[in-house]
Order: sequence, then C-alpha cells, then structure tokens
Amino acid sequence: MVNETQQTGSGSSSSRSDGGSSSGSESSKDNSRCSTPVLDADRHERLREKMRRRQEAGDRWFSLEFFPPRTANAAVNLISRFDRMGAGGPLFIDVTWHPAGDPGSDKETSSMIIANTAVNYCGLETILHMTCCNQSKDDITGHLQKAKRLGLKNIMALRGDPSGEEWEEEVDGFNYAVDLVKHIRNEFDDYFDVCVAGYPKGHPEAESYEADLRHLKEKVFAGADFIITQLFFRPETFLKFMKDCQAIGITCPIIPGIFPIQGYHSLRQLVKLSKLEVPQEIKDVIEPIKDNDAAIRNYGVELAVSMCRELLDSGMVHGLHFYTLNREVATTEVLKRLGLWKEDPRRPLPWAVSAHPKRRVEDVRPIFWASRPKSYIYRTQEWDDFPNGRWGNSSSPAFGELKDYYLFYLKSKSPREELLKMWGEELTSEESVFEVFTCYITGEPNRNGYKVTCMPWNDDPLATETNLLKEQLEKVNRRGILTINSQPNINGKPSTDPIVGWGPSGGYVFQKAYLEFFTSSEIVTALLKVLKKYELRVNYHIVNVKGQNITNAPDLQPNAVTWGIFPGREIIQPTVVDPVSFLSWKDEAFALWIEQWAKLYEEESPSRMIIQYIHDNYYLVNLVDNDFPLENCLWQVVEDTFELLN
Amino acid sequence: MVNETQQTGSGSSSSRSDGGSSSGSESSKDNSRCSTPVLDADRHERLREKMRRRQEAGDRWFSLEFFPPRTANAAVNLISRFDRMGAGGPLFIDVTWHPAGDPGSDKETSSMIIANTAVNYCGLETILHMTCCNQSKDDITGHLQKAKRLGLKNIMALRGDPSGEEWEEEVDGFNYAVDLVKHIRNEFDDYFDVCVAGYPKGHPEAESYEADLRHLKEKVFAGADFIITQLFFRPETFLKFMKDCQAIGITCPIIPGIFPIQGYHSLRQLVKLSKLEVPQEIKDVIEPIKDNDAAIRNYGVELAVSMCRELLDSGMVHGLHFYTLNREVATTEVLKRLGLWKEDPRRPLPWAVSAHPKRRVEDVRPIFWASRPKSYIYRTQEWDDFPNGRWGNSSSPAFGELKDYYLFYLKSKSPREELLKMWGEELTSEESVFEVFTCYITGEPNRNGYKVTCMPWNDDPLATETNLLKEQLEKVNRRGILTINSQPNINGKPSTDPIVGWGPSGGYVFQKAYLEFFTSSEIVTALLKVLKKYELRVNYHIVNVKGQNITNAPDLQPNAVTWGIFPGREIIQPTVVDPVSFLSWKDEAFALWIEQWAKLYEEESPSRMIIQYIHDNYYLVNLVDNDFPLENCLWQVVEDTFELLN
Repeated sequence: MVNETQQTGSGSSSSRSDGGSSSGSESSKDNSRCSTPVLDADRHERLREKMRRRQEAGDRWFSLEFFPPRTANAAVNLISRFDRMGAGGPLFIDVTWHPAGDPGSDKETSSMIIANTAVNYCGLETILHMTCCNQSKDDITGHLQKAKRLGLKNIMALRGDPSGEEWEEEVDGFNYAVDLVKHIRNEFDDYFDVCVAGYPKGHPEAESYEADLRHLKEKVFAGADFIITQLFFRPETFLKFMKDCQAIGITCPIIPGIFPIQGYHSLRQLVKLSKLEVPQEIKDVIEPIKDNDAAIRNYGVELAVSMCRELLDSGMVHGLHFYTLNREVATTEVLKRLGLWKEDPRRPLPWAVSAHPKRRVEDVRPIFWASRPKSYIYRTQEWDDFPNGRWGNSSSPAFGELKDYYLFYLKSKSPREELLKMWGEELTSEESVFEVFTCYITGEPNRNGYKVTCMPWNDDPLATETNLLKEQLEKVNRRGILTINSQPNINGKPSTDPIVGWGPSGGYVFQKAYLEFFTSSEIVTALLKVLKKYELRVNYHIVNVKGQNITNAPDLQPNAVTWGIFPGREIIQPTVVDPVSFLSWKDEAFALWIEQWAKLYEEESPSRMIIQYIHDNYYLVNLVDNDFPLENCLWQVVEDTFELLN
Repeated sequence: MVNETQQTGSGSSSSRSDGGSSSGSESSKDNSRCSTPVLDADRHERLREKMRRRQEAGDRWFSLEFFPPRTANAAVNLISRFDRMGAGGPLFIDVTWHPAGDPGSDKETSSMIIANTAVNYCGLETILHMTCCNQSKDDITGHLQKAKRLGLKNIMALRGDPSGEEWEEEVDGFNYAVDLVKHIRNEFDDYFDVCVAGYPKGHPEAESYEADLRHLKEKVFAGADFIITQLFFRPETFLKFMKDCQAIGITCPIIPGIFPIQGYHSLRQLVKLSKLEVPQEIKDVIEPIKDNDAAIRNYGVELAVSMCRELLDSGMVHGLHFYTLNREVATTEVLKRLGLWKEDPRRPLPWAVSAHPKRRVEDVRPIFWASRPKSYIYRTQEWDDFPNGRWGNSSSPAFGELKDYYLFYLKSKSPREELLKMWGEELTSEESVFEVFTCYITGEPNRNGYKVTCMPWNDDPLATETNLLKEQLEKVNRRGILTINSQPNINGKPSTDPIVGWGPSGGYVFQKAYLEFFTSSEIVTALLKVLKKYELRVNYHIVNVKGQNITNAPDLQPNAVTWGIFPGREIIQPTVVDPVSFLSWKDEAFALWIEQWAKLYEEESPSRMIIQYIHDNYYLVNLVDNDFPLENCLWQVVEDTFELLN
C-alpha cells in the first residue's frame, strides 16, 4: 500500500453494517458436524473471525506486506522468504498490486500468482491488493473471479494511482476505492473479506483530514471488514486517528501500518511517494549517519520497537502490520524484540498445510512427498475433494502429470554451478554418487570441500527428526542404499514434543519407522530374501522405473505411519504409505535423477551416463516396520541384506 | 431341509456355469480403493467366495440349520441360541421355510424375520430356505424382493411339499426347485447366492438314483452355487454320491448334511418324513436304549464324530452342515470334538458386526450402545450410509424412535418374576436401588438370595473386560454412582489379547478410560466442582431426562475411545463418545428405568415411585480420561467428589 494512493468517493453508504462478527455462528455450526476434527480452528475461520478471536483472547499478532518480484529468480527467493517468515506466525501476509507488472496474469511474477503461491503452496492467509482506477468493470470482475478460483479469500480494495497527469472521474467507472468495495459486495456477496486503507494524517489528496475520515467511513459502511493504515512516524498520530474514527462510528478493526526504517534511500523514496513528512527528530538522527546502512537499520529497529510498544501498551492495538519492503532482517528483529515472533510455532499437522479453502479438511497425505510438499500440492491442485480421516475415502488417484516440470516453485533454490559443486563436477562411478548421498546425511564437506545442503529429492538440509537416524543413515548410504526419506518410530510422545510433536497440546503422537531409498537390483535380490524373515512385521514396496512392482501390502491398502491421539477428538492419521500413489511418486522420484542431476552434465558425458544408468537400473524401495512399540528393525533388515551379499 | 421334499424338473440346462469363482476379481478391485480397511475380509465376500477361500486355504468349516420357532418367547430363546452358537464360528446358518407358518410375513416367528434377525442383529451369514410349489410367481418374487430389502443374500431353492394327495404339475407354474433357481437368476441376476438340495440316496420320489443326479445337474446348471445334502447314515453313502456327481460334471461345492441323533422319537419322526431307512447296525444299538435320552445322545455324538472324521479324512469334504433341530448340546459337542468349534473366535471389531451388505463398511459406533448392540442396529436400520473411518463422516444423526419399545428382540430374556427377584419385589428407598446395581457388579446374591445377572441396560452378566474394574465399580455403586457402562484404559496391548484384543493379529489396541452412570443432582453439583481440576484431562457430558446438558467437549466433536493400529492398515477407531448421539442414547437410557423396571410394579406403588423419582431427577453422566498412557484418573474424580460431599 505504501506507494499506492487512494481516495474515497461520495457513494451512498450501504445498509450493510460491519460484518466483523456476523458469521461467527455460521462457522461454528459448520464445525459441529464437520467431517474433520478441527485440529486447528484457524483453518476453518475467515480472516475477520481470526482477528476477532485473537482480539477476544487478548492475543497480539502481526502481519507482513510484500510486493511482487520483477524476475523469476527473485520470485523463487521471495517464496522461500514466505516460508521463513511464515514460520514466525503472521496472521496474514499481503501482496501489493502492480498495475505496471500485469498483476492479474499467469506470469510467475504477477501479483495474482505470488498471492496464489503464498496461499496454496506456503499455507499463508493472504490478502491480495487490487486497484480499480483506469480499469473496466469486466477486467475487475475477471480478476476477482480468478482470485476466488485460486483460493484467495481476502481483497484489499484500493483506488490506485491514476495514470497521466490529469485525472478525471469517469461516469459509471471505478473512481474511488469505495466503488470497488461496493462492486465486490454486489458481485461476490460475502465471499471475500475486504480490507481498505486508512490515512492517519489524512490522504494527501483529500480536502481535509475530516473529509478523509468521512470517506473512510463510507468504505467501511460499503462493506469493508477492517482497515490497514498508511505508515506514520509517531504513535500519537495513529492513536488520535483511531479515536477520531471511533468518534464518527467506525467500529471495525484498524491495524496500524509499521515501517521499520531500513536505509536512507528507501526512506526518502517512500516519503516522496506517500507524500508524508519525516519528523524533524528522526531527520536529526538519520542525516549524520546516512551512509552507514547498519547504523540506520539499527536505529530503525529501535524506533519501530519503541513505537510498537507504545501502540500495544495503549490497549487499543492488537495487531501490527509491517511494511517489509521484501526484506527480512529488520522486521524479524522488531518482531523478536516485541515477543511476537513465535520461534517454534505449533504444527497443526506433521506437514505444512495449504490455505486454499477447498483443502481445509485435508488431513491425510502420502509420506512420499514429505520433502516436496509444494510438488504434492501442485500435482493435486485439480482435485475437488481432499482426503480427511482416511486416505481411501475421498482421495482422487489421479495425480497431475510431470509435464510442467520446471514450474518455478518446484525449481531448486540453488543455481547450476552450486549444484555441480555439491553433486560433483565429474562423476566417475556409482560410488561417487553414494558419496554425495553420504555427505548430505553427515553434513561433512565432499572431497572438493563443499557441503551438500540439498539433493534432488530434498531442497533443504536434513530435517531435525531425520537427524535422530543420522548414524545409521550414513552407514547404509556409504554402501549404496541411497536414502531419500525416512522417519523413526515413535511410541506415544507428547504432542508438544519439540522435534516430533504436532497438533493440539495434551495429545500423544505415534509413528511407524519408515525408510525409502534407491538401490541396485543386486541389493534388491538379497533384500527380498531377507524380507521373507520379516514378512509379518515389515511392509515393502519395491519398484523400478518401468513400473515392475513387488509388494506384500494386503489389497493395496494404505498403511498409516503417523498418527495422533488428542483430548476430545477422533484419531488423526496425517501420513500414510499408499501403494497406489506410490506409483505416481515413483515417476517423479525417478525423473528427478534426470531432470535435476543428469542434465547438469553434457549429453553423452560419463557423469550423465552414470546417473542415467542408475535411473534405468536401480529400484525405489520403501519399508515400514509395523511394530512401532519395539526397536526399529529396518536397520537390521539392511544389515542382514549386506551380510547375505558378503 | 430335513423335512422338506424336493424334486428336480426337466427344465433345459442354462449356459451359466458354476459361478463359484467368477466374481473374485471384482471383489478384490472393490477392496483396493474401498474406504474402510478390510479388517475382516469375510465382511466383503459373498458366501460362495468365502467357501472357495476356505477351501483354497485348506480351512475346515461348519454350518448350522435351524427352523423358525412357534412362539414369540421361543423366538427370543432362538436368538440367544444364535448368539451362543454364532460364537463357535459357523460359516453360515440357514433357516427353513415353513409354508404353514406364514413364512414371508413380518411376524416375529416367520422364516423371513428369523433370518432377518440372524443377519442384521446377530451378524450371521444366513441362508433363507424358500419353497415354490403351490405358489404364484408374484408371491415368490415378493418374498425374494423382501429378502433382498432386509439384507439377505443367500437362498436355498426348494420345491417344498405339495399340499394335498394328488399333485399335478402346473403349466407355467413352479413345479420343481429348478424353476425357482431359474426364476431367481432371471429376476435377480447374480444378486443371491443360490443353494440347492442333493440326495445321497436319491430323492424318494425320483424315478431312479441316476435320474435324480441328472435333476441335480440341471439345478446347478440353472445357476445354483453349491449343494447341501439330505442327511445320511454312512460316510460311504456321501462319498459315492459326490464321486457320481463329479462324474457327470457337477463341480460346485457339495456339503454333507450331518444329523447327530439326539433322541429316539426325533429320529423316528425324521426318518418317516425323509423316507430314509436307518441302517440295521444303528437300530441294533438304539432299540435297547430307546428310553435313555442321555445314552442315545452320547451314542449320536459318537456316531456323528466318527462319520465326520471319515468325511474330512477323505480329502473330499471341507465343510459340514449340521441339522441342529434347534438344539445346542449335541451339535456343539460334535464340533468341539472335531476341533471345529472356535472357543475364542477373533473379534473383527470390539462390537458385534451386522451382516447386512449395506453395513459392511461400518466400523465406528458410539460407545453408549455397547451393551445393547441390537438396539443400536434397530435404531439405525433406516440409515443409508454407515460411518467408516470417522464418526462425523457419514453418520446420520437421526436415530429411530423408541415407539416400538417392545420389539421382541429388544425384550429382556428374563421373565417378570425373575426380574422382580433380582431387582427387588419391593423397593424401600434409593439405597435399595444402589444395592441392586452393586449386586450386579459383585455377582453376590442380593438380600433375598438371588443373583442379579442382568440390568435394564445390560441383558448379560458383566463383560470380562469390565471385571478388570470390578472393585472400584462396587465401591462407587454402593454410594449412588450407578454405573451402566465402563471400560479401562489400555495403552497398546497386542490385538490378540484374550480380553481386550480385536482385529487382525500383529496389531496393537488402545482405549481411553470411560465411565457412564446415573447419579443424583447433589452428586452432580459436587462432581462439577471437582471436574474443574481435571478440565484439560477429562471430557464430560452430563444430562438429565429433560435434556439439560452440561459438557466441556469442544465443538460437539466425537472423542475416539477405542482404536487399533494394524500392520499395513489405516487406523481403526471403532468406538467414539459422540455428543450428538449421546442425546438419543439419553432418551433410551432414561426410558429403560420406566419401561423395564418401574412397570414391574403396580401404579402408585412406593417401589414404582422410587424408580420414577430417579428417572425424573437423576442425571446421566459420562466421563472420558483422555490421558490413556497414565493411570485412569476417573476413580480419583469420583473419590474427590465424595470427599467434597462429606
């Protein structure tokens, strides 16, 4: 919003009152017989209800504003920033609308697609900004329909900057934000939560501060659910504004926009765009240190923390909205110092949930995509139903194909040169591949001194939970059991356990031991002999790239490998080993050898041929030890296999 | 079949071959994506498939034949016999068709309703006999449609005894069993499994043994799935018959009908009806002891055991069909000596499953009806969907009303006089009611020397599992916590545990501690104060007859209190405490005070008024201790409550 201007029009006020709490009872009726235990009430509530609930509970919260990136690479970076900053627990993020950047298009960098990614792939409650001036009604309706289709539920309705010097009102056009608010309510009823902008100093183009307040009231009465303000430099500016709003009957939440000063130039530019004046006491500090970025940032953090404290202490403010300028450090620092950043947010489920409304009942997924949740979401985006309670219940077996393999948010975060350093400029044998896997597990540098921090199947370093298995994993990878997924068995740890816990407190979580790896046909032959001894205890699926499939799973039924028992709830079993979807995963897992690794090398090069050989000849194996209360027997299975081979 | 005669007609043989194995693949395809884990494959298979699977696995099995009773009281007895003999694990039972007893009617004693009860309320795979002679096509179709509607899946197609001396074939009528077989296949396609009768000595009315064999072949080729034979006295009779059948191309299963001789007169009558001749060697033994029932029965058991052994040892026989004459002792004895009676059959689920096809996915029920499963089945008989996986998923909240309260299979097995002896000829105070509850728990005789073996809420003595809680239950019942349902907490016992185990072997079962009781408002007031201390650990529902309801359950969600983890399966959670259905149970539980207890006494009598007072003023309470790995805290809750009262 920072650099978007806005003005309220003279439209008549609607009879619709603030909807802030109007549908609370509807939601709780839904929940009373809903098919999924409401593990995380947040997943079922609208943003305005979440806001209300937090306020009633006396919880303080924050939100984060981002603008869309200019390049595809910047988009990949922004998405990992969403993941990192999402871990701190924002109530929502918002994505600004850049009319110059084709904001409603399918481009990787458009406002629409960035917001889509935040909701669907990062699981963040998201507000999409939308401006209306100089746009046709049809264009606007089209954007809103698309947003709805993508699962976006919140719109920040703005006027936007008029293009050209001389701006004139269009008859029957969208001249003011209030026109957009009314349009949303007329065309989409109560579907969207609508946010509007407030100007603590009055809008620069408004006739007066008082006139601007009246415009704001019109926007609220036209159907806006809450207000986010333009940035300001003194807490008293906001507090006065809030009292003035209340005095004229604006009762919806008003969220102060906080701008931590992060640098001399960005501040100057912002001030110019927003036509705000920087108070003299701030100028006095900044001017002398204007070439010292670190010093300015430290000062900006100090200033923001002190202002936020004052706002929160006033008792009138429950949430803070941060203008991040797409940067992490300053905002994160302010939030940590305020105690609003949640270092270890509770996981509602073992995997990252998506925020798309149609996925809100989803509480079961196959374990195979544990390290590639975005790929799973992408490949199931066309599903109409999502499984809840049982995998077999409503899951469509049709996974999206792999044709859009280079979809930007499935790309590796590391550039080619870095991957070559990690995975080997030149491979000489299958053993040199074993070494790469081993280095990834141990965290030790490879023979060229580089740490292997990602693999084609795992874009991030080893999970904390997997660390529990590190020693054994190292041993088996060295010998050609190339592990790509595993979990230890857990026999009833508290749901609050920092490593393996998830779900509401007071519960207990369980796991069956799981091990998934690529290995040679020679090892598979021995493994199958060994598995006979473990027939009643270990379930296995062994498949090669051609789809030759060996399993002892009864009737192709899924096997629950993670589950939790909670007070007053039905059982939740969020992770299953499903024989049917394993065959879809198999295609993806084998393709990653070629798409992500082999293609780093020249065609016909020995390195590429080694990877191609593995792709063509190795098997993908998964093993489940069903006897979760006993010591994990899968290491013994592997040990027995190696012994048989010797 | 024993006293039904039958003759095969001359109908042309159909092109349909023996369907014994034709739909095996269809069934396993169903299972591969079915929504309920196939805990018990039996529930999903047709009878002919079960038979085939048992034969392939080399398992031996037995089945039991009963005839419909003459009176309602006899029906109640027969149904408890179904429950007791069902515990021995018959592959199926069959119910004969008594044309004289209005066999297709809704009377409690009709063949149709008895078969319905066996399937739906006792969970037994059941074959309903049906005869066709002297009946119109419409009558027969009507009977078959009704059978299908009630969930019956198997028909034994018979001619039946012609009425009157001179029987003539009707043109276009049903003259022979083969006509009925064809009619079933024409009108109902493959819906029913069809059984026909075979006569090892040839049918008494047949032209010759060979002609009778040809008639049998016609019945099989018209669509019968298997054959049950008339009784016979020598094993070689059956073995010769079987070889002769095979020789002319009959390949479906042929099950020998075994008749353990149980008394002199029943044997004579049977022989007369079936026109069989008793071999001289048997007559020689029986005639001298004809007045000694016990001796004849012992001899009958010996004879049957020795004949069955010879049949099984031949390798040609896998199943044995017993003509029980509605008696238990002789047949059970034979089965036990043969090792076919399974003393402790595996429970597929903690509660007795129903055999109606539409209930085959059912795997969740509220705990409230644990001691009244027939009532639960009755009250949910109109449901189209049954919950599987999760209670909230597909369960209809509409329970049938209690208007048919005296439905015969919900009646107490004990007559009024017995109930009065157990529950008191005269009650003098609420405490005398406490005593009845306490005696039921302890098994000690009451002050008049009678043991209390049932209660209005429990028609059977205390469950073995509840015995684990006996001491504590006694203590609290003495003081007016009148318990009607409870289970201990279980933290991962093997699924094969003889007391609490269920489901396939290799699994682990779990429970949360549960306690349900009636108690006075005074105790409830104290209890509520105590429960504050246990707020995060104990879920409670407290309701009186007027429906005043106090609970701390979040969002009216069900709480899983029994669940199991099995190799290669999703989690099963067969028992839940469901706040919504608790209110339907509440009506039933309170009504039982009046219907079963108060009405034993004269109107206005002090005894009746005491029960009425309890009904009007007590509360029904249920408590769940969510912390299943710890020691059950519910006894401490009750202890604290009594302490607070003192």
